[in-house]
Amino acid sequence: MTSRKRASRLTDDRITLAHGAGGKASAALIDEVFIDAFGQPDEAELADSAVLSVEGGRLAYSTDSYVVSPIRFEGGSIGDLAVNGTVNDLAVSGARPAYLSAAFIIAEGMAVDDLRAVVADMRRAADRAGVRIVTGDTKVVPHEAGDQVYITTSGIGVVPPERCLGAKRVGAGDRLVISGPIAGHGMAVMIARGNLALTAPIASDSAPVNGWVEALYEAVPPDDIRWMRDATRGGLGTIANELARATGLGVILDDEAIPVDPMVRGACDMLGIDPLYVANEGCFVAVVAADRADAAVAALRAAGAARAAVIGEVAADPPGVVGCRNAFGGTRLVDTLVGDPLPRIC
Amino acid sequence: MTSRKRASRLTDDRITLAHGAGGKASAALIDEVFIDAFGQPDEAELADSAVLSVEGGRLAYSTDSYVVSPIRFEGGSIGDLAVNGTVNDLAVSGARPAYLSAAFIIAEGMAVDDLRAVVADMRRAADRAGVRIVTGDTKVVPHEAGDQVYITTSGIGVVPPERCLGAKRVGAGDRLVISGPIAGHGMAVMIARGNLALTAPIASDSAPVNGWVEALYEAVPPDDIRWMRDATRGGLGTIANELARATGLGVILDDEAIPVDPMVRGACDMLGIDPLYVANEGCFVAVVAADRADAAVAALRAAGAARAAVIGEVAADPPGVVGCRNAFGGTRLVDTLVGDPLPRIC
Repeated sequence: MTSRKRASRLTDDRITLAHGAGGKASAALIDEVFIDAFGQPDEAELADSAVLSVEGGRLAYSTDSYVVSPIRFEGGSIGDLAVNGTVNDLAVSGARPAYLSAAFIIAEGMAVDDLRAVVADMRRAADRAGVRIVTGDTKVVPHEAGDQVYITTSGIGVVPPERCLGAKRVGAGDRLVISGPIAGHGMAVMIARGNLALTAPIASDSAPVNGWVEALYEAVPPDDIRWMRDATRGGLGTIANELARATGLGVILDDEAIPVDPMVRGACDMLGIDPLYVANEGCFVAVVAADRADAAVAALRAAGAARAAVIGEVAADPPGVVGCRNAFGGTRLVDTLVGDPLPRIC
Repeated sequence: MTSRKRASRLTDDRITLAHGAGGKASAALIDEVFIDAFGQPDEAELADSAVLSVEGGRLAYSTDSYVVSPIRFEGGSIGDLAVNGTVNDLAVSGARPAYLSAAFIIAEGMAVDDLRAVVADMRRAADRAGVRIVTGDTKVVPHEAGDQVYITTSGIGVVPPERCLGAKRVGAGDRLVISGPIAGHGMAVMIARGNLALTAPIASDSAPVNGWVEALYEAVPPDDIRWMRDATRGGLGTIANELARATGLGVILDDEAIPVDPMVRGACDMLGIDPLYVANEGCFVAVVAADRADAAVAALRAAGAARAAVIGEVAADPPGVVGCRNAFGGTRLVDTLVGDPLPRIC
């Protein structure tokens, strides 16, 4: 917040094309919705770029568009998703997320109060993750040309020099550690759509994972952390396949060990959906040296990821393939999805 | 380009929701459209973040969403706009643009060849500006929920330590220098829409300005360059008002000196549109010390901005207001737009 002089007042209840046209209406929207929530970068002047001070070294840089519908669901909204998703992409690359950009494509007719609420969610999520939203953009599109609002965030984080992650560093025997239960986010969004004959109190797991990543690096020597990925679109099954393909090694998941909340499990069973392929927004997998797996889980739990667990291992065989071992000793193949098995949720 | 093993082939002619779902279809689209055009970041592995090496110091960071319709017009497309627009936002903050992210929100049903052409335009624009597109995202939305494609880019540039721009550095007597003719972009997009009774060979000015900014800094001591802005949405009239408001000083434009191509001027006259408010995508204004204005223009012209010109000055009076002086000695007020005087073009 600054004392910058206001150019004009935002008097409309709903977004119009004028709010995207770059004139007084745009300035009022930016002042009273975005600057109010995100504050003003250092210079008390609105420019199209933020200028940031960074230490030299390696930066992680990431972007994602968020198009979830509906924009609000149990446990979250498109606003905190847009922050957490990009924070998490940076965190699992080993970076400490620092700065975000946020670009809004708003459909004409959206209620200004709905936009304000989304922006407030972004601010809260940014505060929780310890990042700042420093630059942004707004465009307005005709109502027939878009859903309520799409948000694209990008983010910059600093990668400490000792951190080195990558599929090349993964070897047979390494363990997969997960930060928490899967499939809550995708099911929460499906329920919020109201087109399932199901009303269960299932909440999205939308959360920043950067604090957990830091806890992991405090507990485990950096060389023993090989690879990390957040299990978003496509779920755990998809990132396990990415790991198998990138390493050329097998990935064996332990069905019993994968945390799934009973309510989520029940909903998936009723709908015939495999939770392995349901999206998450606050869940990541780290591949660590076998003798560090217990320490990794303990560190995650101590940092608040109460249901962190070892969920599988990397094996020489079968090469490039993911299997899931069940309680009876059988192993089923976990393939990559071709399309989308679910109503689209992100 | 790398020899990374292809996960699957892109066999569809049109985009489907499956291409946004994170599975095999998404991977094929990313491989065969985006990686083919943009290349693969250093590590031969697809992750959600790019990791970049940067020198310490000040970084400029910017983002913009591009929603122009139609996506292709005389002189450009949404693809090169999305690169040039963000390159230019960085350049006018004094930065040397280095890295871009690109996030695509694609409407189901878009022809894959159209997407390929847009992506090829982005690659060409990035090469011309000397920047690399290092990270990205794709989402697919149902056809009824979006236009053909929206692109959000963000960018990072390094600000050399001696460069310091800002409204606080502007004083009465400083001159406004423009890099080239105005209003071509907005008129080209309107004509491409086909709903004007007008077919004139008017091309967008879509271009990167970072080379011109570098030329300016080679010719003028950095302290004598006070403020820069690219005249995009809202046109020259809008950024002149931003300058007046931020400085509290008057901005006096010289109508005769503002370059406008005759064809563009004619089209604006026919349609009753003031070229001062028409969008540009390769045009910036620099405020420089009065005794450097001629050197600034000469440097810009030598660097290829053939119609660079001094177009006005900063004055103590009238405070916070923009005037435009005509050939007869009269001065009209150039106000900030309230809404959008034109068909929405960006």
